[in-house]
Amino acid sequence: MEESGLDGVVMGLSGGIDSSTVAALSALAIGGDKVLGLILPEQETYDNRDVEDAKAIAKKFRIKTQMIDITSTLETIYKSIPIFSSVDKQCKGNVKARTRAIFWYYYANRLHRLVCGSSDKSESMIGYFTKWGDIATDISPIMDLYKTQVRKLAHHIGIHESITTKPSSPKLWPGHIAEKEIGINYETLDLILYGLEHFMAINEIAKQLDMNKKIVQRIRNRWLSMEHKRRMPITTKIGYRTLGADFRLPQEHH
Amino acid sequence: MEESGLDGVVMGLSGGIDSSTVAALSALAIGGDKVLGLILPEQETYDNRDVEDAKAIAKKFRIKTQMIDITSTLETIYKSIPIFSSVDKQCKGNVKARTRAIFWYYYANRLHRLVCGSSDKSESMIGYFTKWGDIATDISPIMDLYKTQVRKLAHHIGIHESITTKPSSPKLWPGHIAEKEIGINYETLDLILYGLEHFMAINEIAKQLDMNKKIVQRIRNRWLSMEHKRRMPITTKIGYRTLGADFRLPQEHH
Repeated sequence: MEESGLDGVVMGLSGGIDSSTVAALSALAIGGDKVLGLILPEQETYDNRDVEDAKAIAKKFRIKTQMIDITSTLETIYKSIPIFSSVDKQCKGNVKARTRAIFWYYYANRLHRLVCGSSDKSESMIGYFTKWGDIATDISPIMDLYKTQVRKLAHHIGIHESITTKPSSPKLWPGHIAEKEIGINYETLDLILYGLEHFMAINEIAKQLDMNKKIVQRIRNRWLSMEHKRRMPITTKIGYRTLGADFRLPQEHH
Repeated sequence: MEESGLDGVVMGLSGGIDSSTVAALSALAIGGDKVLGLILPEQETYDNRDVEDAKAIAKKFRIKTQMIDITSTLETIYKSIPIFSSVDKQCKGNVKARTRAIFWYYYANRLHRLVCGSSDKSESMIGYFTKWGDIATDISPIMDLYKTQVRKLAHHIGIHESITTKPSSPKLWPGHIAEKEIGINYETLDLILYGLEHFMAINEIAKQLDMNKKIVQRIRNRWLSMEHKRRMPITTKIGYRTLGADFRLPQEHH
């Protein structure tokens, strides 16, 4: 914040463990009055408990909040698209994640603040996020912490158990549960990712965790194939002499 | 496209030189039937000539198009934001750029295609784009070509003069002209950037281009200070022994 010369942070506050932890950490670091948590519910995935949890975190750490119902924006987008299909929940879900980012950045632009993200390492590594959606932020303080580590940290800094123990959800569609969609629990996933990150062989990870190596292989493939989501768009490097024809480059001076 | 196993590309078609060139290159590379150009006008910056130019390019290179008026989506977003200010054109403009990306990706998701971007090197280097907006794409074929090179390439592949000679505009607000906003013309900007990229000293660039070195300094500062727009969000790297306590890492086997 100091380096950028900006006045605070804006972030999405979902009532989930990741955003609650990042909001609390932010408040502890720069003061709750410099943290704005945007609560952005929409009809289809609305859960009153999440909104109440988000508000409780804000109150506990003295964070400012703003609630905006994004249902009408989403409906307008859906209506504008001739090929829109309401059954294609993945496409719709991605629209939701990207729409949230538009609101974060509007507030950040207007209030001269940074957008602070809540992606954790488990989700970042397997690409369990919307490209240019939830990961589209300026800083991302817990992106190097596995979900199981975030749980410990959350407990340590006093995030309430109603938040730390509820199943994680990106809330892209009704009943959306992360572990169910990924097909593995975070305790196991994190150990596999930790092994892969440290160059352990697939067989060795499977042996130590006493599991079928096909599961480890599947996670490894997912980790590598999602690399495009963690990178800026790919371009073609081009040799160019044309532009510099009337320009003497430094090596020509020696 | 082959590597990702996807069926084609989706891209924004604005009627400007960059997107026209990328659309034409895409059609030449994979066939126009595999290229979908989204024409996404909105009331405030509507220019019939741009729409006609976009359609003409599509016709010439046999590219499919879909036109969607995004005015209602933008209006709904503006209305949802309690602190919205219509006079803050920069904030509004960024909303526009990010909204366009939502439509690109909806089509790409639904049609199993890549999103193809039109950012050029001049704009990328000085950060003249909306973070997570116009640059939020999967591939970006001309991102290593300066604007002045894109102009030559456009001419070479047969982009009509009505497109290659009109002033560039990101169309974030009415009368938005790139060179006016940046405060320098692309011919000069590109030479400065080319020199900087090749580690030439500021004094030397200014001397060879016969210009005030303060201008060169200003461009250099802008190039460096915009680095955050070309990077994934910054995180904190954390040492972690906790997670691996019950896991033997590879070096322990030796």
